[in-house]
Amino acid sequence: MSSRSDGPLYDGLVLGATLATLDGDRGYGEIADAALAWRDGRLAYVGARSDLPGAPQDLAAKVVQAGGWITPGLVDCHTHLVFAGDRAREFELRLQGASYEDIARAGGGIVSSVRATREASGAELLRQSLPRARALLGDGATTLEIKSGYGLDLENERKMLRTARAIGRELGIHVRTTYLAAHALPPEYAGRSDDYIDAVCAWMPRLHEEGLIDAVDAFCEGIGFSPAQTRRVFETARALGLPVKLHADQLSDLGGGALAAAFDGLSADHVEHTSLDSVRAMAEHGTVAVLLPGAFHVLRETKLPPLDAFREHGVAMAVATDCNPGTSPLLSLRQAMQLACSHFRLTPEEALRGATVHAARALGCADRGVLRVGAQADFVQWDIGHPAELCYWLGGRLARRVYAAGVLVEGSAA
Amino acid sequence: MSSRSDGPLYDGLVLGATLATLDGDRGYGEIADAALAWRDGRLAYVGARSDLPGAPQDLAAKVVQAGGWITPGLVDCHTHLVFAGDRAREFELRLQGASYEDIARAGGGIVSSVRATREASGAELLRQSLPRARALLGDGATTLEIKSGYGLDLENERKMLRTARAIGRELGIHVRTTYLAAHALPPEYAGRSDDYIDAVCAWMPRLHEEGLIDAVDAFCEGIGFSPAQTRRVFETARALGLPVKLHADQLSDLGGGALAAAFDGLSADHVEHTSLDSVRAMAEHGTVAVLLPGAFHVLRETKLPPLDAFREHGVAMAVATDCNPGTSPLLSLRQAMQLACSHFRLTPEEALRGATVHAARALGCADRGVLRVGAQADFVQWDIGHPAELCYWLGGRLARRVYAAGVLVEGSAA
Ligand SMILES: [Zn+2]
Ligand SMILES: [Zn+2]
Repeated sequence: MSSRSDGPLYDGLVLGATLATLDGDRGYGEIADAALAWRDGRLAYVGARSDLPGAPQDLAAKVVQAGGWITPGLVDCHTHLVFAGDRAREFELRLQGASYEDIARAGGGIVSSVRATREASGAELLRQSLPRARALLGDGATTLEIKSGYGLDLENERKMLRTARAIGRELGIHVRTTYLAAHALPPEYAGRSDDYIDAVCAWMPRLHEEGLIDAVDAFCEGIGFSPAQTRRVFETARALGLPVKLHADQLSDLGGGALAAAFDGLSADHVEHTSLDSVRAMAEHGTVAVLLPGAFHVLRETKLPPLDAFREHGVAMAVATDCNPGTSPLLSLRQAMQLACSHFRLTPEEALRGATVHAARALGCADRGVLRVGAQADFVQWDIGHPAELCYWLGGRLARRVYAAGVLVEGSAA
Repeated sequence: MSSRSDGPLYDGLVLGATLATLDGDRGYGEIADAALAWRDGRLAYVGARSDLPGAPQDLAAKVVQAGGWITPGLVDCHTHLVFAGDRAREFELRLQGASYEDIARAGGGIVSSVRATREASGAELLRQSLPRARALLGDGATTLEIKSGYGLDLENERKMLRTARAIGRELGIHVRTTYLAAHALPPEYAGRSDDYIDAVCAWMPRLHEEGLIDAVDAFCEGIGFSPAQTRRVFETARALGLPVKLHADQLSDLGGGALAAAFDGLSADHVEHTSLDSVRAMAEHGTVAVLLPGAFHVLRETKLPPLDAFREHGVAMAVATDCNPGTSPLLSLRQAMQLACSHFRLTPEEALRGATVHAARALGCADRGVLRVGAQADFVQWDIGHPAELCYWLGGRLARRVYAAGVLVEGSAA
């Protein structure tokens, strides 16, 4: 800092918007006619314009006039956005009346994504995945979690995780990688799921050494891996000091919420069928419930997550896109928020907290998802008159400017 | 044409994309490695690149290389996008548990849109409405129907219709205006709905003389206007030679489909509760069924339109956004197509026909919604690998270039 002592106090300053700081436990944390300033990528002033400690042009190297509302940069805490191919044709076949067997025979389902992802070079995988990340960024997401899980062998899981890191560098946003080799059983391990879990656990330290893993996840489900297998994956993660999260209780209650909580999991995700016992365990261990209304919408599910129990027990609820080619082709976290309001009856404030401060918690990133001095200078200026509009409109382009660590990454400064 | 006889054959030519012409009754009308050319705003060549009658650079003043798919420009045949204010706060109140009475007491509901729209100047109404039209255009819509119906008096209905026309001029796209003064009973006519219908019928010839009306619509419903009142509006329209369409059978079956058909209506819209008798009448008179899945989604309706009956009887189904502040805040026709697939199980092909060729029929515009020599040169180049993707993704920016009457209105030529 000393080398800059003669320069202005702030690197940048935005004036005139209304802030939804989300600071505090309730409400939007509204500040009208506000000023927001940052230095070295961190927020340095969050408050009323009239309380600024001087004239704006003296305080900051760059001053931007803004209207509308500014929220924290959105945090998409659950995506599978790195994959090759898409499954739109499978989506069409289903709507034409094809059965799951028909689709499997036509080469569809998750194995088609695994095949396409394995076949793609790293460069090709990046080329196909980057537009999805760019779409999420264009709608306000400055932190993305990206899972592996379509490689299902060491080399291809590595390729996916490297691609995820490359997306963060390319777009200038923060990417958190999650190792999800325990996503599906690859064909070469058919009938040998325990052996596959051995392999998943053996690859983990190698990829961790390469700096490619921020967290570890598994798909714990009747059609996925058992609680016992999940536990082995989590024990390996714990031995490496890696935090865990879980695809839990989406189609049935296998006690996934409680299992994630028992490992002090960052989050249990989906959680449609989560029991009250699991809710209590999640509350006790601070495990976030990540709601994924996109898959609920596409699969036309009817079983709602235990939302009131989460509220009563103080389990934080996050909202994410689950961006994936099979069950949730969502390219906008704002649309996930809309679906969370429509299908789950979340309030717009809950949905916004779910896509910011609670999502940040679900990633173990306490320094973002809120507008507060010292937090990461990630924020979005929206062309809206009220934050409920973020959950109200379907479609449209509401994000005027998106900043990540104080750098304009979307929109124009003028 | 003679003055141009020495110039190139085409004004413009796009090469290399795959076309979904939608020409013919079934399938996408796919043409791979295609050429699409236009002259004087009309399509002049639609076919394989290899069948072009010469070298591209000799044939056209401007040649563009394209990838992905090209579809007809989308046609949004049912919108209420001209209004002032929004109702996001009301949306939030509902999710916070407020009753309809609470909201009415808080000044919400359609009367709040009427009040805000009446209070806004024409310039202000344009300023607020234009971004919505721009969002629809940005997602591929080159023809928009826009209804009046928040003015509810002569002066303010005129202001709305003029604003709709101004939007068309401003964006360089085609706007069809629909006179919907019979949308709701304005407060000053409380208890005198027949008197209000007199007024609606009296204003119609005046606004028609001013060239502001392309079609006439009414809201025929228990909470709207009766079939007898609707009939009076339609008789006035018929006397003026204006085509009609109807908000029909959304919440109950009032025989709206048959009523629209009896006046050779262009379309009956919503049609969730439409009877088989109405379906038969619509088939006989060529009245299009306009599906509005946005309102269905937002209102969490469960009663599906009689889709199989429409199919069996050959009633064309269109899909539209119904863009409006109360029940369908949709800023993307593509998202309406997604909802039509998710909620109504339309196939992607049905949804795409519904948003192009069938929607054009619902507006009485036979010259668009299809890629065919002689049709309006409205088309969209999409960054997709299969047309089902248009119904598959939620969010994102898939439209790379949008042309209206051969003019690039969205995206860059390079
Ligand atoms: Zn997932
Ligand atoms: Zn309507």
